[in-house]
Amino acid sequence: MEEFFLRYVRERFGDGGRASQPGRPNIQIGVGDDAAVLSGSERDTVITTDLIADGTHFRSEQISPRQIGRKALAVNLSDIAAMGGVATVATVALLLPRRHGNTLWLAEELMEGIAELADAFQVAIIGGDTNVWDGKLALCITLLGLVRKGQAWTRSGARPGDRIFVTGALGGSLIGHHYSFTPRLELARQLRESYAIHAAMDITDGLALDLSRMAKASHVGALLNSSAIPITPAAHEMSQMDQRSALEHALFDGEDFELLLALSPEDADRLQRDSLLAGSVTEIGEFTDGSELVIETPEGRCELPARGYVHGL
Amino acid sequence: MEEFFLRYVRERFGDGGRASQPGRPNIQIGVGDDAAVLSGSERDTVITTDLIADGTHFRSEQISPRQIGRKALAVNLSDIAAMGGVATVATVALLLPRRHGNTLWLAEELMEGIAELADAFQVAIIGGDTNVWDGKLALCITLLGLVRKGQAWTRSGARPGDRIFVTGALGGSLIGHHYSFTPRLELARQLRESYAIHAAMDITDGLALDLSRMAKASHVGALLNSSAIPITPAAHEMSQMDQRSALEHALFDGEDFELLLALSPEDADRLQRDSLLAGSVTEIGEFTDGSELVIETPEGRCELPARGYVHGL
Repeated sequence: MEEFFLRYVRERFGDGGRASQPGRPNIQIGVGDDAAVLSGSERDTVITTDLIADGTHFRSEQISPRQIGRKALAVNLSDIAAMGGVATVATVALLLPRRHGNTLWLAEELMEGIAELADAFQVAIIGGDTNVWDGKLALCITLLGLVRKGQAWTRSGARPGDRIFVTGALGGSLIGHHYSFTPRLELARQLRESYAIHAAMDITDGLALDLSRMAKASHVGALLNSSAIPITPAAHEMSQMDQRSALEHALFDGEDFELLLALSPEDADRLQRDSLLAGSVTEIGEFTDGSELVIETPEGRCELPARGYVHGL
Repeated sequence: MEEFFLRYVRERFGDGGRASQPGRPNIQIGVGDDAAVLSGSERDTVITTDLIADGTHFRSEQISPRQIGRKALAVNLSDIAAMGGVATVATVALLLPRRHGNTLWLAEELMEGIAELADAFQVAIIGGDTNVWDGKLALCITLLGLVRKGQAWTRSGARPGDRIFVTGALGGSLIGHHYSFTPRLELARQLRESYAIHAAMDITDGLALDLSRMAKASHVGALLNSSAIPITPAAHEMSQMDQRSALEHALFDGEDFELLLALSPEDADRLQRDSLLAGSVTEIGEFTDGSELVIETPEGRCELPARGYVHGL
């Protein structure tokens, strides 16, 4: 439904929901990126909101409330990382099932999972709303962050010739990584100190689909090198169970919460030789003129389908 | 569950979730008021979040999706009004029932209800998250606003001798007012231009319970004059159905979304003679030394119980 929201707000409000009123905050980036950006006098403010729900983003019968709370904040932190920002304050809304039996304990455990990760990234919880209902569990977190003025990373700045990088490795996240991942805020901080990041986003719906979104937003095509794509052990594990290749899992599984980045060829070469960071990122291809998504495999060049993981198991 | 959240964040983070880190936004007001406040260089930022859910805050079989969307934003706008702020930008998270049959239409209608009210108050929708699940409908909106530096209205500033005012009339909101109310942003704007508001909050859980919260936060008691309390026709209507007096409805029904205000005796007298505003507000009593909540009725002075409306029908 991401596309619905984007289209609706753009059609309804015009200009990507970006139109500012006199005396109102200047909306630098509206809907359509990982987060919105408001211009400030010294720094810009980044805002993102994510709702996670039982049976869709987690399964309450499989994991603990602390892990659920942790994930609710982690997915928002990943959006701030993808904007090149520092996370600062959050609001938390809980929708708790009455039939759980021990609603107060559940609320405390969820909050503790949120608080532990908030502590790790120095995020303050400044507001919230707690509700009990007859339905299942859902959590909605809105997270604010700060970026240097005019320096927010968007998904629309990739240029033909830019090299494509990813952090970490991809695929098989549903085995467990989507609960335990560490949002890439620290790596994003290190990258922005030494490199001009032309475009960035976090990979939530699979590399192929999210790359297609970055390419479309940037009005470029992309050429991936299949043998360069870093693949997780979990993707290999899933491959043995379901007959799909580990590469397919790396391309089309969702919830990697790694960063997808565009850098100039010069910065790319420099990053490859960076003793601190080279081990944390992998160059997997380059952006091209045009609009085609192509993947180079041992069998030849193929069109890369813009499909991926859509929530709603 | 409001008390749970407040207590949890205070115990877990200390100082009401207010502790700021070096290089982080200065949190002027954390949890426990209608909204949080972050200090800015020219103006302060107000942040509030509210989640509304089917069967708890609305009944989807009784009202249209536009009315539901409208209410989701209206309750947040009411919080910004209660802080003396101007609403600016919002994020919207939707949790849509898969079994609805026409999920896309539902999403559009909800958004249209939000957008119409957003237009009326010049609020920009800058971000969101749309999810489909097997459960019922829920909406979570986070709304930001601006206030003059250091001028946010809190619920903790009432002093003994201050007069107690309410906007509009109270009671019987569940007959329809809770869907159709206009958040008191314009009246709040007019009040803050001419009067020093010592304390303010919006009445969501009933006058008695919310007054008790303001009195407790301000370390004062309160004396209400029962004959002065403005009562809605809806409260009289409900009284005929359920044998409870219209006054009881005005004191204990929830979801009025009117403002509860504390003004000095001098400002109170001036407001009573204000040809523009006197008709929109009513003086209903005064704050007192101590901590007792008392209501003066034709039968004598009684203790006012701090009970009210708690969500979860």
